[in-house]
Amino acid sequence: MPQLSPRVTDMNDQGSDGWEVFARARAMVEQGIPVTELTIGEHDIRTAPAILDAMHAAAHAGHTGYATVPGITPLRQAIATRVTQRTGVPTKVENVLVTPGGQAALFAAHLTTLQPGDAALYVDPYYVTYPGTLRACSARPVAIPTTAENSFFPTKGALDTAAQTPGAKTLLINTPNNPTGTIYPRAVLENIAQTCRDHDLWLISDEVYDTQTWEGDHLSPRALPGMAERTIVIGSMSKSHAMTGSRIGWIFAPPHVIEALSDLAVSTTYGVPGYIQDAALYALTQGPDLEQEIAEPFRRRRALALDVLARQGTVGVIPSQGAMYLMLDIRKTGLSGQDFANRLLDSHHIAVMPGESFGISAAGHLRIALTVNDDRLLVALETLCTFAQSLTRA
Amino acid sequence: MPQLSPRVTDMNDQGSDGWEVFARARAMVEQGIPVTELTIGEHDIRTAPAILDAMHAAAHAGHTGYATVPGITPLRQAIATRVTQRTGVPTKVENVLVTPGGQAALFAAHLTTLQPGDAALYVDPYYVTYPGTLRACSARPVAIPTTAENSFFPTKGALDTAAQTPGAKTLLINTPNNPTGTIYPRAVLENIAQTCRDHDLWLISDEVYDTQTWEGDHLSPRALPGMAERTIVIGSMSKSHAMTGSRIGWIFAPPHVIEALSDLAVSTTYGVPGYIQDAALYALTQGPDLEQEIAEPFRRRRALALDVLARQGTVGVIPSQGAMYLMLDIRKTGLSGQDFANRLLDSHHIAVMPGESFGISAAGHLRIALTVNDDRLLVALETLCTFAQSLTRA
Repeated sequence: MPQLSPRVTDMNDQGSDGWEVFARARAMVEQGIPVTELTIGEHDIRTAPAILDAMHAAAHAGHTGYATVPGITPLRQAIATRVTQRTGVPTKVENVLVTPGGQAALFAAHLTTLQPGDAALYVDPYYVTYPGTLRACSARPVAIPTTAENSFFPTKGALDTAAQTPGAKTLLINTPNNPTGTIYPRAVLENIAQTCRDHDLWLISDEVYDTQTWEGDHLSPRALPGMAERTIVIGSMSKSHAMTGSRIGWIFAPPHVIEALSDLAVSTTYGVPGYIQDAALYALTQGPDLEQEIAEPFRRRRALALDVLARQGTVGVIPSQGAMYLMLDIRKTGLSGQDFANRLLDSHHIAVMPGESFGISAAGHLRIALTVNDDRLLVALETLCTFAQSLTRA
Repeated sequence: MPQLSPRVTDMNDQGSDGWEVFARARAMVEQGIPVTELTIGEHDIRTAPAILDAMHAAAHAGHTGYATVPGITPLRQAIATRVTQRTGVPTKVENVLVTPGGQAALFAAHLTTLQPGDAALYVDPYYVTYPGTLRACSARPVAIPTTAENSFFPTKGALDTAAQTPGAKTLLINTPNNPTGTIYPRAVLENIAQTCRDHDLWLISDEVYDTQTWEGDHLSPRALPGMAERTIVIGSMSKSHAMTGSRIGWIFAPPHVIEALSDLAVSTTYGVPGYIQDAALYALTQGPDLEQEIAEPFRRRRALALDVLARQGTVGVIPSQGAMYLMLDIRKTGLSGQDFANRLLDSHHIAVMPGESFGISAAGHLRIALTVNDDRLLVALETLCTFAQSLTRA
């Protein structure tokens, strides 16, 4: 039989990734065992009925044929206007491509900027699909290590070391950050921009959590001097509008990059369903109130969770400013994140993600998704802390 | 500024492709000039309201979150059952991946089987995205030439010559065929299968028109001896259920290939909206009557068109057995397909695709999409034939 391509079969060659905790939790739930799942970044609400009604109306009105591949113009315009208002970077229709989700945008951005064998930089810890996405583009993933002590922000030294990798072509960042819940401050972003300019790198900026900001502001690096021309921003309706399953996102980039991405989309996706684009247009024209309403539960739960964590001294927490996650430091227990998560699942039926799932920099940590109701979250966190204390004493 | 990747910027390096006829026709329509468009393979009906209602019910019932990436099990099962019944090839859930459309399936199948630099074979004339899709996978496209005199079927000699290209790894075919409207007979498929076995090639079989068969039967090459293990079939709801804009299709392949494709999908698309999968499941469970109803206008119009063409001797027609197209031979006029199409558009406001849009083998031909109502189609064809005669006399 012919072989498959290593760029796909070796995509997930990144050692133990700790996702068996997630799988075991799901299996327990299927067996009828109640588990508090704090694993996946998915809202505990569904897409708003009004958005679904807008979709249905568009479909019944006949928007069921091929839609234009770069996206329908009114939606591209609405996305451009929104980002211009939010970031101050003048953005036009020609700067916007509509994509079937943020993940498709990430993949397309890398396929379009990297040649096979090029080095593709990303920050560790990272969203779980990043290294595989880079490998699927036949690139060489290069992780930039960080430390908990520096809030998992990349240092200028680590950035420049990685940028000196032969064939380095792209740098992928994510702020507000999954898994750490941090927002990169201006100084960190200026370092990143400097490295990209000095080493002639594309900056691929994953900003899908940009409506989930609890302290400080999200600054898009595309707004920094000289960066609009080399920055490719990834956005999505998934987190901002609880539309995870609708698979709709976008890319901002210079017009010639959007043209290349649109040519690519003809061969990789052939665009996004027209009625989903109409639903997205409806959702965006509801303005920031809807976005704040959808973000609010995570803001509230983060505050509740930080209160619980402040009342004990075993479990540390990475300073959190955004996104729907908290990153907890359980190194005082002497266990790995993976061992801790497995034991917590077995003994207390609480599922959390081991830090190791997101890279070696997050070893000895746990990622908590704030995606269950307030009471359940509080009980789970109190249980987790008590469990950590019992391990520390042992 | 950093450069873009040649695999994307050079995707469409295939010379003049004749698509300016399509673009000019659209521009005329936008200016209010009525044009009979026989260009694109899109139904003149919309998706059935009952299918849209099923989608809306699923969305309102809460199927708006992340759906499992290989596809929801009931849909994979329905697709597997349908193909087992239609082709006799035993097919299980593990043989099926749900994709966001047939084009995404084509891309994923090639990315998963080819390494950068491998040679990827395809038959000329071809569906317009094929060479670009192969280039986006960093493969070297190798066209297999055919002749109108042999109904554009690849000969055993041409297949074997192409298969001897160093690094040949895949062969892409399409039956029922776009743009020619032919269905590959068993003998042609047996030659193809033999070449794949002899040269250890993956066969990627695009069968998105498999419900549009007017004469003879569609035989899936996956059913031939020893082929199930090396054949990757591309299917779609677009043509069979008039769901072009919904972007839902599938792949049949051996389980280990589906596993690799599913891993890839996590990084390239993250699956298909759950409510669209539910709509597809509803549509498939309506059975073959719905599919026949959707195919019927093309069957009827093909018969009408062949009648018109039989009454004159200037314009030839490639023997047609399936799909929603006819391929016309206008070589007697001495014009290229492109020149003929441009002059027909200018003088009679009828838009057809030049054969050259689909490869050099179809030079001097036109592709007619049977996608306008019967009366308009007849008038357009009669006008086209009269126009061709006037050119021949001149």
